[in-house]
Amino acid sequence: MTGRRSQIESLSNPLVKRMRLLREKRHRRAEGLFLAEGLRIATEAREAGVFPAWLFLGPDGAAHPLAQALVADTMAAGGEVIDTTAAILSKLSGKDNPQTIVGIYAEPATTLAAIDRNAAPIWLVAERLRDPGNLGTMLRTGDAVGAGGLILLGDSTDPYGVEAVRASMGAIFTQRLVQARWDAFLPWLRSGQGELVATWLGDDSVDYQAVRYAAPTFILVGNESQGLPADYAAAADVRVKMPMLGKADSLNAAVAAAVMAYEVLNQRRR
Amino acid sequence: MTGRRSQIESLSNPLVKRMRLLREKRHRRAEGLFLAEGLRIATEAREAGVFPAWLFLGPDGAAHPLAQALVADTMAAGGEVIDTTAAILSKLSGKDNPQTIVGIYAEPATTLAAIDRNAAPIWLVAERLRDPGNLGTMLRTGDAVGAGGLILLGDSTDPYGVEAVRASMGAIFTQRLVQARWDAFLPWLRSGQGELVATWLGDDSVDYQAVRYAAPTFILVGNESQGLPADYAAAADVRVKMPMLGKADSLNAAVAAAVMAYEVLNQRRR
Repeated sequence: MTGRRSQIESLSNPLVKRMRLLREKRHRRAEGLFLAEGLRIATEAREAGVFPAWLFLGPDGAAHPLAQALVADTMAAGGEVIDTTAAILSKLSGKDNPQTIVGIYAEPATTLAAIDRNAAPIWLVAERLRDPGNLGTMLRTGDAVGAGGLILLGDSTDPYGVEAVRASMGAIFTQRLVQARWDAFLPWLRSGQGELVATWLGDDSVDYQAVRYAAPTFILVGNESQGLPADYAAAADVRVKMPMLGKADSLNAAVAAAVMAYEVLNQRRR
Repeated sequence: MTGRRSQIESLSNPLVKRMRLLREKRHRRAEGLFLAEGLRIATEAREAGVFPAWLFLGPDGAAHPLAQALVADTMAAGGEVIDTTAAILSKLSGKDNPQTIVGIYAEPATTLAAIDRNAAPIWLVAERLRDPGNLGTMLRTGDAVGAGGLILLGDSTDPYGVEAVRASMGAIFTQRLVQARWDAFLPWLRSGQGELVATWLGDDSVDYQAVRYAAPTFILVGNESQGLPADYAAAADVRVKMPMLGKADSLNAAVAAAVMAYEVLNQRRR
Protein backbone atom coordinates (compact mmCIF):
# COMPACT_ATOMS: atom_id res chain seq x y z
CA MET A 1 0.00 0.00 0.00
CA THR A 2 1.42 3.36 -0.99
CA GLY A 3 -0.08 6.76 -0.37
CA ARG A 4 -0.09 9.88 -2.49
CA ARG A 5 1.67 13.18 -2.31
CA SER A 6 -0.15 16.23 -3.56
CA GLN A 7 -0.25 19.97 -3.26
CA ILE A 8 -2.99 22.31 -2.07
CA GLU A 9 -2.65 26.08 -2.28
CA SER A 10 -6.26 27.23 -2.34
CA LEU A 11 -7.92 28.20 0.90
CA SER A 12 -11.25 27.15 -0.60
CA ASN A 13 -10.08 23.62 -1.34
CA PRO A 14 -12.86 21.22 -0.24
CA LEU A 15 -10.53 18.97 1.77
CA VAL A 16 -9.18 21.97 3.70
CA LYS A 17 -12.71 23.14 4.40
CA ARG A 18 -13.66 19.69 5.61
CA MET A 19 -10.58 19.18 7.80
CA ARG A 20 -10.79 22.55 9.52
CA LEU A 21 -14.23 21.54 10.78
CA LEU A 22 -12.51 18.84 12.84
CA ARG A 23 -11.88 21.48 15.45
CA GLU A 24 -15.55 21.02 16.31
CA LYS A 25 -16.61 17.96 18.26
CA ARG A 26 -19.69 17.14 16.17
CA HIS A 27 -17.61 17.04 13.01
CA ARG A 28 -15.01 14.83 14.68
CA ARG A 29 -17.81 12.47 15.68
CA ALA A 30 -19.32 12.48 12.21
CA GLU A 31 -15.98 11.89 10.48
CA GLY A 32 -14.31 9.66 13.07
CA LEU A 33 -11.22 11.80 12.61
CA PHE A 34 -9.21 14.21 14.71
CA LEU A 35 -6.46 16.71 14.23
CA ALA A 36 -3.01 16.72 15.87
CA GLU A 37 -0.61 19.59 15.41
CA GLY A 38 3.14 19.61 15.37
CA LEU A 39 6.07 17.37 14.52
CA ARG A 40 6.56 16.25 18.10
CA ILE A 41 3.13 14.66 18.51
CA ALA A 42 3.16 13.23 14.99
CA THR A 43 6.53 11.66 15.77
CA GLU A 44 5.17 10.11 18.97
CA ALA A 45 2.32 8.71 16.89
CA ARG A 46 4.76 7.37 14.31
CA GLU A 47 6.84 5.68 17.01
CA ALA A 48 3.64 4.07 18.26
CA GLY A 49 2.96 2.83 14.72
CA VAL A 50 0.11 5.26 14.08
CA PHE A 51 0.07 7.30 10.87
CA PRO A 52 -2.20 10.09 9.68
CA ALA A 53 -4.75 9.65 6.93
CA TRP A 54 -3.68 13.10 5.75
CA LEU A 55 -0.47 14.88 6.62
CA PHE A 56 -0.38 18.61 5.87
CA LEU A 57 3.10 20.10 5.54
CA GLY A 58 3.85 23.81 5.51
CA PRO A 59 6.64 25.40 3.44
CA ASP A 60 9.29 24.34 5.99
CA GLY A 61 7.39 21.30 7.13
CA ALA A 62 9.71 18.69 5.65
CA ALA A 63 12.98 20.34 6.64
CA HIS A 64 13.55 18.25 9.78
CA PRO A 65 14.84 14.69 9.38
CA LEU A 66 12.01 13.47 11.62
CA ALA A 67 9.53 15.13 9.27
CA GLN A 68 11.10 13.37 6.31
CA ALA A 69 10.77 10.05 8.09
CA LEU A 70 7.18 10.92 8.90
CA VAL A 71 6.42 11.71 5.26
CA ALA A 72 7.97 8.48 4.06
CA ASP A 73 6.21 6.34 6.67
CA THR A 74 2.86 8.07 6.18
CA MET A 75 2.97 7.33 2.47
CA ALA A 76 4.14 3.78 3.07
CA ALA A 77 1.15 3.33 5.36
CA GLY A 78 -1.22 4.52 2.63
CA GLY A 79 -1.74 8.09 3.86
CA GLU A 80 -1.78 11.22 1.75
CA VAL A 81 0.94 13.84 2.19
CA ILE A 82 -0.15 17.33 1.23
CA ASP A 83 2.32 20.15 0.68
CA THR A 84 0.56 23.34 1.52
CA THR A 85 0.86 26.99 2.54
CA ALA A 86 1.22 28.67 5.93
CA ALA A 87 -2.19 30.28 5.36
CA ILE A 88 -3.84 26.88 5.01
CA LEU A 89 -2.11 25.58 8.14
CA SER A 90 -3.44 28.65 9.96
CA LYS A 91 -6.90 27.87 8.68
CA LEU A 92 -6.67 24.23 9.79
CA SER A 93 -5.30 25.00 13.23
CA GLY A 94 -7.15 28.24 13.85
CA LYS A 95 -3.90 29.90 14.91
CA ASP A 96 -1.92 32.83 13.62
CA ASN A 97 1.35 30.99 14.10
CA PRO A 98 0.55 27.40 13.26
CA GLN A 99 2.86 24.45 13.60
CA THR A 100 4.49 23.41 10.31
CA ILE A 101 2.75 20.04 10.42
CA VAL A 102 -0.87 19.04 10.92
CA GLY A 103 -1.87 15.38 10.90
CA ILE A 104 -5.41 14.07 10.52
CA TYR A 105 -5.85 10.76 12.34
CA ALA A 106 -8.60 8.20 12.67
CA GLU A 107 -10.20 8.07 16.12
CA PRO A 108 -9.60 4.60 17.50
CA ALA A 109 -12.90 3.25 18.80
CA THR A 110 -12.04 1.23 21.90
CA THR A 111 -14.57 -0.54 24.10
CA LEU A 112 -14.21 -2.07 27.55
CA ALA A 113 -14.62 -5.48 25.97
CA ALA A 114 -11.63 -4.83 23.73
CA ILE A 115 -9.32 -4.06 26.66
CA ASP A 116 -6.89 -6.62 28.02
CA ARG A 117 -6.83 -5.43 31.62
CA ASN A 118 -3.85 -7.62 32.45
CA ALA A 119 -1.75 -5.99 29.77
CA ALA A 120 -0.83 -3.23 32.26
CA PRO A 121 -0.62 -2.97 36.07
CA ILE A 122 -2.25 0.47 36.22
CA TRP A 123 -5.33 1.95 34.60
CA LEU A 124 -6.60 5.48 35.12
CA VAL A 125 -10.34 6.04 35.42
CA ALA A 126 -11.82 9.53 35.44
CA GLU A 127 -15.39 10.50 36.06
CA ARG A 128 -16.96 13.45 34.18
CA LEU A 129 -13.62 15.04 33.47
CA ARG A 130 -14.28 18.56 32.19
CA ASP A 131 -10.92 20.07 31.47
CA PRO A 132 -9.17 19.01 28.25
CA GLY A 133 -5.80 19.94 29.74
CA ASN A 134 -6.43 17.58 32.65
CA LEU A 135 -7.51 14.84 30.28
CA GLY A 136 -4.43 15.14 28.08
CA THR A 137 -2.20 15.38 31.14
CA MET A 138 -3.66 12.14 32.52
CA LEU A 139 -2.89 10.37 29.26
CA ARG A 140 0.66 11.71 29.41
CA THR A 141 1.03 10.56 33.02
CA GLY A 142 -0.44 7.18 32.12
CA ASP A 143 2.21 6.75 29.46
CA ALA A 144 4.94 7.66 31.95
CA VAL A 145 3.85 5.20 34.65
CA GLY A 146 3.26 2.34 32.23
CA ALA A 147 -0.52 2.47 32.54
CA GLY A 148 -2.65 0.71 29.98
CA GLY A 149 -4.97 3.60 29.33
CA LEU A 150 -7.65 5.97 30.48
CA ILE A 151 -11.28 5.04 31.01
CA LEU A 152 -13.62 8.02 30.90
CA LEU A 153 -16.86 7.62 32.81
CA GLY A 154 -19.94 9.68 32.08
CA ASP A 155 -20.01 12.93 30.19
CA SER A 156 -16.39 14.01 29.86
CA THR A 157 -14.69 16.57 27.69
CA ASP A 158 -13.81 15.20 24.25
CA PRO A 159 -10.43 13.43 24.38
CA TYR A 160 -9.94 14.13 20.68
CA GLY A 161 -10.26 17.88 20.99
CA VAL A 162 -7.17 19.88 19.99
CA GLU A 163 -6.33 20.96 23.54
CA ALA A 164 -6.56 17.46 25.03
CA VAL A 165 -4.50 16.01 22.18
CA ARG A 166 -1.86 18.69 22.67
CA ALA A 167 -1.72 18.21 26.46
CA SER A 168 -1.30 14.45 25.95
CA MET A 169 2.03 15.14 24.19
CA GLY A 170 1.41 12.12 21.99
CA ALA A 171 0.13 9.77 24.68
CA ILE A 172 -3.25 9.85 22.93
CA PHE A 173 -1.55 7.43 20.54
CA THR A 174 0.00 5.13 23.12
CA GLN A 175 -2.68 4.90 25.80
CA ARG A 176 -5.95 3.00 25.30
CA LEU A 177 -8.90 5.32 25.63
CA VAL A 178 -12.39 4.11 26.47
CA GLN A 179 -15.57 6.07 27.08
CA ALA A 180 -18.10 4.18 29.16
CA ARG A 181 -20.99 4.57 31.52
CA TRP A 182 -20.54 3.67 35.19
CA ASP A 183 -23.37 1.15 34.81
CA ALA A 184 -21.31 -0.65 32.20
CA PHE A 185 -17.90 -0.11 33.78
CA LEU A 186 -18.63 -1.61 37.19
CA PRO A 187 -19.95 -4.99 35.94
CA TRP A 188 -17.05 -5.17 33.48
CA LEU A 189 -14.58 -4.44 36.28
CA ARG A 190 -16.10 -7.12 38.51
CA SER A 191 -16.04 -9.67 35.71
CA GLY A 192 -12.27 -10.08 36.10
CA GLN A 193 -9.23 -9.23 38.18
CA GLY A 194 -8.67 -5.72 39.36
CA GLU A 195 -8.78 -3.43 42.37
CA LEU A 196 -10.80 -0.23 42.16
CA VAL A 197 -9.13 2.53 44.18
CA ALA A 198 -11.12 5.73 44.65
CA THR A 199 -9.49 9.02 45.57
CA TRP A 200 -11.95 10.21 48.16
CA LEU A 201 -11.70 12.57 51.11
CA GLY A 202 -14.22 10.78 53.29
CA ASP A 203 -14.00 9.59 56.88
CA ASP A 204 -13.51 6.01 55.70
CA SER A 205 -10.59 6.92 53.45
CA VAL A 206 -7.14 5.66 54.34
CA ASP A 207 -3.77 7.20 53.67
CA TYR A 208 -2.76 6.42 50.09
CA GLN A 209 0.59 5.06 51.26
CA ALA A 210 -0.97 2.69 53.79
CA VAL A 211 -2.46 0.44 51.11
CA ARG A 212 -0.61 -2.31 49.23
CA TYR A 213 -2.07 -2.11 45.75
CA ALA A 214 -2.85 -5.20 43.70
CA ALA A 215 -2.53 -5.27 39.93
CA PRO A 216 -4.32 -4.32 37.85
CA THR A 217 -5.00 -1.21 39.89
CA PHE A 218 -7.78 1.03 38.62
CA ILE A 219 -7.25 4.55 39.97
CA LEU A 220 -10.54 6.43 40.05
CA VAL A 221 -10.67 10.24 40.24
CA GLY A 222 -13.77 12.40 40.22
CA ASN A 223 -15.03 15.49 38.51
CA GLU A 224 -12.91 18.62 38.96
CA SER A 225 -15.41 20.60 40.98
CA GLN A 226 -17.65 17.98 42.54
CA GLY A 227 -15.35 15.03 43.12
CA LEU A 228 -16.73 11.49 42.94
CA PRO A 229 -20.37 10.62 43.62
CA ALA A 230 -20.63 8.91 47.00
CA ASP A 231 -21.95 5.68 45.50
CA TYR A 232 -18.97 5.41 43.16
CA ALA A 233 -16.63 5.77 46.12
CA ALA A 234 -18.67 3.23 48.09
CA ALA A 235 -18.41 0.71 45.25
CA ALA A 236 -14.61 0.94 45.20
CA ASP A 237 -12.47 -1.71 46.91
CA VAL A 238 -10.64 0.96 48.84
CA ARG A 239 -10.93 4.70 49.33
CA VAL A 240 -7.68 6.61 49.70
CA LYS A 241 -6.57 10.16 50.36
CA MET A 242 -3.36 12.07 50.09
CA PRO A 243 -2.24 14.22 53.01
CA MET A 244 -3.61 17.74 52.64
CA LEU A 245 -1.70 20.02 54.99
CA GLY A 246 -3.08 23.37 53.88
CA LYS A 247 -6.38 25.13 53.51
CA ALA A 248 -7.43 23.40 50.30
CA ASP A 249 -9.42 20.18 50.56
CA SER A 250 -8.46 18.65 47.24
CA LEU A 251 -5.83 18.41 44.53
CA ASN A 252 -6.22 19.10 40.85
CA ALA A 253 -7.68 15.94 39.25
CA ALA A 254 -4.68 15.28 37.00
CA VAL A 255 -2.31 15.87 39.93
CA ALA A 256 -4.26 13.48 42.18
CA ALA A 257 -4.16 10.81 39.46
CA ALA A 258 -0.41 11.30 39.02
CA VAL A 259 0.47 11.22 42.72
CA MET A 260 -1.57 8.02 43.08
CA ALA A 261 -0.16 6.44 39.93
CA TYR A 262 3.43 7.07 41.02
CA GLU A 263 2.69 5.55 44.42
CA VAL A 264 1.39 2.38 42.76
CA LEU A 265 4.38 2.32 40.42
CA ASN A 266 6.82 2.92 43.29
CA GLN A 267 5.37 0.02 45.28
CA ARG A 268 5.80 -2.22 42.26
CA ARG A 269 9.44 -1.31 41.75
CA ARG A 270 10.46 -1.83 45.38
CA MET B 1 -12.11 50.53 60.28
CA THR B 2 -15.46 49.88 58.62
CA GLY B 3 -16.16 49.64 54.92
CA ARG B 4 -19.11 50.76 52.89
CA ARG B 5 -21.97 49.01 51.21
CA SER B 6 -23.28 50.50 48.00
CA GLN B 7 -25.19 49.65 44.90
CA ILE B 8 -24.21 49.84 41.23
CA GLU B 9 -26.67 49.15 38.44
CA SER B 10 -25.21 51.08 35.52
CA LEU B 11 -22.94 49.25 33.09
CA SER B 12 -21.19 52.55 32.42
CA ASN B 13 -20.28 53.09 36.08
CA PRO B 14 -16.63 54.23 36.21
CA LEU B 15 -15.62 51.67 38.88
CA VAL B 16 -17.07 48.83 36.80
CA LYS B 17 -15.22 50.09 33.74
CA ARG B 18 -12.00 50.28 35.71
CA MET B 19 -12.34 46.87 37.36
CA ARG B 20 -13.18 45.00 34.16
CA LEU B 21 -9.82 46.14 32.78
CA LEU B 22 -8.17 43.98 35.46
CA ARG B 23 -8.60 41.05 33.12
CA GLU B 24 -5.65 42.56 31.25
CA LYS B 25 -2.18 42.16 32.69
CA ARG B 26 -1.01 45.74 32.08
CA HIS B 27 -3.97 47.10 34.02
CA ARG B 28 -3.35 44.66 36.87
CA ARG B 29 0.23 45.90 37.00
CA ALA B 30 -0.81 49.53 36.91
CA GLU B 31 -3.45 49.10 39.61
CA GLY B 32 -1.73 46.48 41.77
CA LEU B 33 -5.07 44.68 41.87
CA PHE B 34 -6.47 41.42 40.59
CA LEU B 35 -9.85 39.78 40.23
CA ALA B 36 -11.00 36.50 41.78
CA GLU B 37 -14.35 34.99 40.91
CA GLY B 38 -16.62 32.85 42.99
CA LEU B 39 -17.58 32.26 46.59
CA ARG B 40 -15.24 29.32 46.99
CA ILE B 41 -12.04 31.23 46.27
CA ALA B 42 -13.22 34.29 48.20
CA THR B 43 -13.90 32.02 51.17
CA GLU B 44 -10.42 30.52 50.95
CA ALA B 45 -9.07 34.08 50.94
CA ARG B 46 -11.20 34.97 53.93
CA GLU B 47 -10.00 31.93 55.86
CA ALA B 48 -6.45 33.07 55.11
CA GLY B 49 -7.31 36.50 56.48
CA VAL B 50 -7.34 38.21 53.09
CA PHE B 51 -10.27 40.42 52.13
CA PRO B 52 -11.16 42.18 48.90
CA ALA B 53 -10.92 45.93 48.43
CA TRP B 54 -14.19 45.65 46.52
CA LEU B 55 -16.65 42.78 46.68
CA PHE B 56 -19.25 42.66 43.90
CA LEU B 57 -22.37 40.67 44.73
CA GLY B 58 -24.97 39.60 42.17
CA PRO B 59 -28.71 39.37 42.91
CA ASP B 60 -28.28 36.01 44.68
CA GLY B 61 -24.76 36.74 45.80
CA ALA B 62 -25.49 37.06 49.51
CA ALA B 63 -27.84 34.09 49.79
CA HIS B 64 -25.25 31.63 51.09
CA PRO B 65 -24.21 31.84 54.77
CA LEU B 66 -20.55 31.89 53.66
CA ALA B 67 -21.33 34.89 51.46
CA GLN B 68 -22.93 36.67 54.41
CA ALA B 69 -19.82 36.03 56.49
CA LEU B 70 -17.71 37.29 53.61
CA VAL B 71 -19.74 40.49 53.35
CA ALA B 72 -19.48 41.16 57.07
CA ASP B 73 -15.75 40.45 57.23
CA THR B 74 -15.00 42.45 54.09
CA MET B 75 -16.71 45.49 55.54
CA ALA B 76 -15.06 44.98 58.92
CA ALA B 77 -11.70 44.95 57.11
CA GLY B 78 -12.50 48.27 55.44
CA GLY B 79 -13.55 46.95 52.02
CA GLU B 80 -16.48 48.07 49.94
CA VAL B 81 -19.35 45.70 49.27
CA ILE B 82 -21.25 46.47 46.07
CA ASP B 83 -24.64 45.00 45.31
CA THR B 84 -24.94 44.77 41.59
CA THR B 85 -26.62 43.11 38.61
CA ALA B 86 -25.92 39.90 36.71
CA ALA B 87 -25.10 42.02 33.65
CA ILE B 88 -22.36 43.85 35.53
CA LEU B 89 -20.91 40.60 36.86
CA SER B 90 -20.86 39.36 33.27
CA LYS B 91 -19.04 42.50 32.25
CA LEU B 92 -16.49 42.12 35.05
CA SER B 93 -15.83 38.44 34.44
CA GLY B 94 -16.20 38.44 30.68
CA LYS B 95 -18.51 35.44 30.92
CA ASP B 96 -22.11 34.80 29.93
CA ASN B 97 -22.75 32.87 33.13
CA PRO B 98 -20.69 34.66 35.75
CA GLN B 99 -20.22 33.57 39.33
CA THR B 100 -22.43 35.44 41.79
CA ILE B 101 -19.40 36.97 43.50
CA VAL B 102 -16.37 38.82 42.18
CA GLY B 103 -13.70 40.06 44.56
CA ILE B 104 -11.03 42.63 43.73
CA TYR B 105 -7.86 42.02 45.75
CA ALA B 106 -4.55 43.79 46.20
CA GLU B 107 -1.59 41.97 44.65
CA PRO B 108 0.81 41.16 47.46
CA ALA B 109 4.29 42.25 46.42
CA THR B 110 6.66 39.65 47.82
CA THR B 111 10.41 39.64 47.35
CA LEU B 112 13.00 36.96 48.04
CA ALA B 113 14.31 39.08 50.88
CA ALA B 114 10.89 39.04 52.53
CA ILE B 115 10.70 35.23 52.55
CA ASP B 116 11.45 33.23 55.67
CA ARG B 117 12.74 30.09 53.99
CA ASN B 118 12.67 28.13 57.22
CA ALA B 119 8.97 28.77 57.66
CA ALA B 120 8.24 25.77 55.41
CA PRO B 121 10.09 22.55 54.51
CA ILE B 122 9.20 22.73 50.80
CA TRP B 123 9.29 25.53 48.24
CA LEU B 124 8.34 25.18 44.60
CA VAL B 125 10.43 26.97 42.00
CA ALA B 126 9.34 27.16 38.37
CA GLU B 127 11.28 28.54 35.47
CA ARG B 128 9.50 30.39 32.63
CA LEU B 129 6.18 28.78 33.38
CA ARG B 130 3.85 29.56 30.46
CA ASP B 131 0.58 27.93 31.28
CA PRO B 132 -1.67 29.69 33.81
CA GLY B 133 -3.41 26.40 34.61
CA ASN B 134 -0.05 24.87 35.53
CA LEU B 135 0.84 27.87 37.65
CA GLY B 136 -2.41 27.81 39.58
CA THR B 137 -2.18 24.04 39.98
CA MET B 138 1.32 24.38 41.46
CA LEU B 139 0.04 26.86 44.02
CA ARG B 140 -2.77 24.46 44.90
CA THR B 141 -0.32 21.58 45.25
CA GLY B 142 1.99 23.75 47.32
CA ASP B 143 -0.84 24.46 49.73
CA ALA B 144 -1.61 20.73 49.97
CA VAL B 145 1.95 19.65 50.77
CA GLY B 146 2.58 22.44 53.24
CA ALA B 147 4.95 24.33 50.98
CA GLY B 148 5.81 27.91 51.74
CA GLY B 149 5.19 29.23 48.27
CA LEU B 150 6.10 29.40 44.62
CA ILE B 151 9.10 31.21 43.23
CA LEU B 152 8.75 32.10 39.55
CA LEU B 153 12.00 32.50 37.67
CA GLY B 154 12.26 34.47 34.45
CA ASP B 155 9.41 35.45 32.21
CA SER B 156 6.42 33.44 33.44
CA THR B 157 2.72 33.74 32.81
CA ASP B 158 1.05 36.24 35.14
CA PRO B 159 0.10 34.52 38.43
CA TYR B 160 -2.66 37.09 38.95
CA GLY B 161 -4.43 36.33 35.68
CA VAL B 162 -7.98 35.01 36.03
CA GLU B 163 -7.13 31.50 34.85
CA ALA B 164 -4.16 31.07 37.21
CA VAL B 165 -6.16 32.43 40.14
CA ARG B 166 -9.01 30.04 39.36
CA ALA B 167 -6.70 27.02 39.00
CA SER B 168 -5.09 27.87 42.36
CA MET B 169 -8.48 27.26 44.04
CA GLY B 170 -7.61 29.90 46.58
CA ALA B 171 -3.99 28.90 47.18
CA ILE B 172 -2.98 32.22 45.61
CA PHE B 173 -3.97 33.62 49.02
CA THR B 174 -2.14 31.08 51.17
CA GLN B 175 1.10 30.51 49.26
CA ARG B 176 3.87 33.10 49.07
CA LEU B 177 4.51 34.13 45.49
CA VAL B 178 7.79 35.66 44.33
CA GLN B 179 8.91 36.63 40.87
CA ALA B 180 12.67 36.76 40.52
CA ARG B 181 15.52 36.43 38.07
CA TRP B 182 17.82 33.40 38.26
CA ASP B 183 20.73 35.78 38.78
CA ALA B 184 19.07 37.02 41.95
CA PHE B 185 17.58 33.72 43.06
CA LEU B 186 20.78 31.67 43.12
CA PRO B 187 22.82 34.05 45.37
CA TRP B 188 19.78 34.40 47.66
CA LEU B 189 19.43 30.61 47.85
CA ARG B 190 23.14 30.18 48.66
CA SER B 191 22.98 32.85 51.35
CA GLY B 192 21.17 30.45 53.68
CA GLN B 193 20.03 26.91 54.27
CA GLY B 194 18.34 25.01 51.50
CA GLU B 195 18.76 22.24 48.97
CA LEU B 196 18.05 22.98 45.32
CA VAL B 197 16.60 19.90 43.60
CA ALA B 198 16.24 20.08 39.82
CA THR B 199 13.90 17.82 37.91
CA TRP B 200 16.14 16.93 35.00
CA LEU B 201 16.30 13.99 32.63
CA GLY B 202 20.06 14.02 32.20
CA ASP B 203 22.61 11.24 32.50
CA ASP B 204 23.70 12.55 35.89
CA SER B 205 20.15 12.52 37.27
CA VAL B 206 19.30 10.08 40.02
CA ASP B 207 16.00 8.41 40.81
CA TYR B 208 13.86 10.83 42.76
CA GLN B 209 13.25 8.24 45.47
CA ALA B 210 16.96 7.53 45.96
CA VAL B 211 17.64 10.95 47.49
CA ARG B 212 17.05 11.89 51.15
CA TYR B 213 15.87 15.47 50.92
CA ALA B 214 16.96 18.12 53.40
CA ALA B 215 14.69 20.97 54.45
CA PRO B 216 14.07 23.48 53.15
CA THR B 217 13.86 21.66 49.81
CA PHE B 218 13.54 23.87 46.76
CA ILE B 219 11.97 21.84 43.94
CA LEU B 220 12.92 23.31 40.57
CA VAL B 221 10.93 22.53 37.42
CA GLY B 222 11.55 23.92 33.96
CA ASN B 223 9.59 25.46 31.14
CA GLU B 224 6.78 23.31 29.71
CA SER B 225 8.27 22.77 26.29
CA GLN B 226 11.99 23.27 26.80
CA GLY B 227 12.62 22.03 30.34
CA LEU B 228 15.37 23.59 32.44
CA PRO B 229 18.43 25.29 30.96
CA ALA B 230 21.47 23.04 31.46
CA ASP B 231 23.26 25.59 33.62
CA TYR B 232 20.31 25.82 36.00
CA ALA B 233 20.36 22.03 36.39
CA ALA B 234 24.13 22.10 36.88
CA ALA B 235 23.82 24.67 39.65
CA ALA B 236 21.38 22.50 41.59
CA ASP B 237 22.54 20.40 44.54
CA VAL B 238 21.00 17.32 43.01
CA ARG B 239 19.30 16.42 39.75
CA VAL B 240 16.48 13.92 39.95
CA LYS B 241 14.15 12.12 37.59
CA MET B 242 10.99 10.15 37.90
CA PRO B 243 10.73 6.77 36.19
CA MET B 244 9.35 7.21 32.67
CA LEU B 245 8.21 3.83 31.40
CA GLY B 246 6.50 4.88 28.19
CA LYS B 247 7.27 6.75 25.01
CA ALA B 248 7.12 10.23 26.50
CA ASP B 249 10.28 11.77 27.92
CA SER B 250 8.73 14.14 30.40
CA LEU B 251 5.76 14.86 32.64
CA ASN B 252 3.54 17.90 32.66
CA ALA B 253 5.33 20.59 34.72
CA ALA B 254 2.64 20.79 37.42
CA VAL B 255 2.53 17.00 37.64
CA ALA B 256 6.31 16.74 37.98
CA ALA B 257 6.26 19.34 40.75
CA ALA B 258 3.48 17.46 42.55
CA VAL B 259 5.06 14.01 42.31
CA MET B 260 8.31 15.48 43.65
CA ALA B 261 6.60 17.48 46.38
CA TYR B 262 4.68 14.44 47.66
CA GLU B 263 7.91 12.42 47.72
CA VAL B 264 9.56 15.08 49.88
CA LEU B 265 6.50 15.24 52.11
CA ASN B 266 6.28 11.44 52.37
CA GLN B 267 9.92 11.21 53.46
CA ARG B 268 9.25 13.80 56.15
CA ARG B 269 6.26 11.98 57.58
CA ARG B 270 7.99 8.59 57.78
